[in-house]
Amino acid sequence: MIEGEVIEPEGLRYTPAGLARMAFKLRHTSMQQEAGMQRQVQCDVPALALGEVAQKISRLQPGQKVKAEGFLAQRSLKIAQLVLHIDNVTLR
Amino acid sequence: MIEGEVIEPEGLRYTPAGLARMAFKLRHTSMQQEAGMQRQVQCDVPALALGEVAQKISRLQPGQKVKAEGFLAQRSLKIAQLVLHIDNVTLR
Repeated sequence: MIEGEVIEPEGLRYTPAGLARMAFKLRHTSMQQEAGMQRQVQCDVPALALGEVAQKISRLQPGQKVKAEGFLAQRSLKIAQLVLHIDNVTLR
Repeated sequence: MIEGEVIEPEGLRYTPAGLARMAFKLRHTSMQQEAGMQRQVQCDVPALALGEVAQKISRLQPGQKVKAEGFLAQRSLKIAQLVLHIDNVTLR
């Protein structure tokens, strides 16, 4: 589970099979405890949603804060960049 | 929370402040449900542990399966690559 703002939405597209597809980034900012020290974390996580979740995200305003659940996968067989696939999103 | 195998351990190092530091990759393989379809996921997640967790991971065999908890952060201010900072690790 990760919280963040929906940024850089690419707009709703469709796969060749007609499935809704929405790519965006999730800007995560938080304070974390690491080895007994507080640190600030900021990262922009490449994210992808398919189907109903994609449609739900496409209706959000850019900058909307959400809680997202999903799994990490490689962008493609050849590109090792990590992409967070979003299964479920709730507004914060 | 993510499960995976500890691969490519770099060996235990120490920060200038004397804190143990261990970089490795977590090879995650699973079946995931996405938009009603089953898919296989494999990814190698760059990971970093500090302090006691780093020492614990340095004692594992390469290939050891673990459950890890932590947070995502950018590799550095200039490098946007995501690194999973591991707070807690348990053997599987």
